Amino acid sequence: MNGILVVGSVALDTVKTTEGSSCDALGGSATFFSLAARCFAPVALVGVVGLDFPAEHRALLCARGIDVSGLKTAPGKTFRWSGKYGKDASVAETLATHLNVFKDFRPKLDETQREVPVVFLANIDPELQAEVLAQMKSPALVAADTMNFWIGSKPDAIKKLLSKVDIFFCNEDEAEALADRPNPLQAADVIASWGPSVVVVKKGEHGALMRVASRFYIFPPFPLASIKDPTGAGDTFAGGFLGYLASCGVYDDVDHLKRAMAYGSVLASFNVEDFSTRNIENLDRDRIDERFHDFVDRMSVPRADELLKTRARTVSA
Amino acid sequence: MNGILVVGSVALDTVKTTEGSSCDALGGSATFFSLAARCFAPVALVGVVGLDFPAEHRALLCARGIDVSGLKTAPGKTFRWSGKYGKDASVAETLATHLNVFKDFRPKLDETQREVPVVFLANIDPELQAEVLAQMKSPALVAADTMNFWIGSKPDAIKKLLSKVDIFFCNEDEAEALADRPNPLQAADVIASWGPSVVVVKKGEHGALMRVASRFYIFPPFPLASIKDPTGAGDTFAGGFLGYLASCGVYDDVDHLKRAMAYGSVLASFNVEDFSTRNIENLDRDRIDERFHDFVDRMSVPRADELLKTRARTVSA
Repeated sequence: MNGILVVGSVALDTVKTTEGSSCDALGGSATFFSLAARCFAPVALVGVVGLDFPAEHRALLCARGIDVSGLKTAPGKTFRWSGKYGKDASVAETLATHLNVFKDFRPKLDETQREVPVVFLANIDPELQAEVLAQMKSPALVAADTMNFWIGSKPDAIKKLLSKVDIFFCNEDEAEALADRPNPLQAADVIASWGPSVVVVKKGEHGALMRVASRFYIFPPFPLASIKDPTGAGDTFAGGFLGYLASCGVYDDVDHLKRAMAYGSVLASFNVEDFSTRNIENLDRDRIDERFHDFVDRMSVPRADELLKTRARTVSA
Repeated sequence: MNGILVVGSVALDTVKTTEGSSCDALGGSATFFSLAARCFAPVALVGVVGLDFPAEHRALLCARGIDVSGLKTAPGKTFRWSGKYGKDASVAETLATHLNVFKDFRPKLDETQREVPVVFLANIDPELQAEVLAQMKSPALVAADTMNFWIGSKPDAIKKLLSKVDIFFCNEDEAEALADRPNPLQAADVIASWGPSVVVVKKGEHGALMRVASRFYIFPPFPLASIKDPTGAGDTFAGGFLGYLASCGVYDDVDHLKRAMAYGSVLASFNVEDFSTRNIENLDRDRIDERFHDFVDRMSVPRADELLKTRARTVSA
């Protein structure tokens, strides 16, 4: 198949924020990523759920065109995460993590999956990420994410993995911890030295930073008057980013990467406007592009010669 | 005269950051503002210093073309502030504030000063800001800033002042405190309802937000690998912003205001790269414009038709 392969978690999340709460709602890194990326390109999801995984969740993913033939059902319960957010939406306090069937997750890719050109190794054990990557035939683009837990417990495995990764996504504090640097730019320089040609540092409600060929590009967030639930924003960002690139078939051009950053921001903004996957499960490319153009207008700085044209028009009107 | 009148503090700052320290260095809101704005337009400074104010500081301001005829010397000591910053450069811990001669600051504008078209009421007692404004003949643009101290002690005076202000600058936490809202966008909506047609919310190392005609524009910060001293960044931002507008003589056009935001960000980025006024005292418009264009490139999202051109060029090359 053409498109994107994502390997990661499919979970049931219980979340409390200043705006409300949700209980055992559809979540997980591969879920958020898939629902965002499928708006741009075909997506195949590899993951595992338990016998208690609601049929309607699988049906939803199917109905959105996501290939869930790689979403296995194992005896036991589905991975569950519960957390809460205070005023600062970028900091989640984990209340409980039950890995359940996810504990024994050992993805085996089939022949079709091994030939997908773009692979996203969502946040799982970095040794598992490497195992999955080793099964891929010759991907055109390898992207990965990680999290604090693995940075603390398996930093060397992450560094080893990164030597084979083209685009690495991580949060600001994770980048600083992984690279042992006090600033996201310094951290991205160190991380890039380990392999990735593109390092994307997500700053939550403060936007995101991208390092390409030693140069930093910086993007504000789409402005929102309230954030209902930030869960999954990072994976939705990666889904919009990689989905856009996959739809273009261009992976190394700065202009395409800049547009991918804006698409990532737009997808993340839709995600945080409601709990769980509620807002992104009904997105289509038209609604995305409408907000994309709105976003670009809100952050664009007109050139001086464009100004003169405007003034001339005003004066002559 | 043409240009900008600024009324605010001229101070001697003692600052400690993670990158070093400075002692009794030139500071104050009117100082930072003036050194930024004078790169764009003539600036007249109204303030007060004590008998201990070093002659070389006054000479520096003069040498940079700033009209310091309104900088009075009063018996007593110059306003002194001392503070320190931790890892989070956006939060200053005040160690000591000695108002000294600034305590009795009652600015009286002369005839020339009263006719300046653009006035910036830097962070001083809001009742004093109103007194200064009442002395102005018919300014084309009135801008003001404030700080936590006045928001806590004289919120009603600030609200009253804002009914006569066109552009209001404040920090994110100050906006939220003044408007009693948990989000900068909601806060800016409330503040705009009190009068200002433009509300600029500065988010420190996370960029800035602008509200014009109910619409929000959002800008990332210029990316820096280290911040030496954030003191004065907000006033330098306002200096670049208003200096640019004054140089154009256009105060209500969104495209000009967007460029003003980018100039503000660029001036603030120069300021935080060194202690006190060291880095901004030697700026000129060429260096500013060089970074401005660099900044715009780092944050711009190419249009789809621009991409196609690039691809065509790549293919045909």
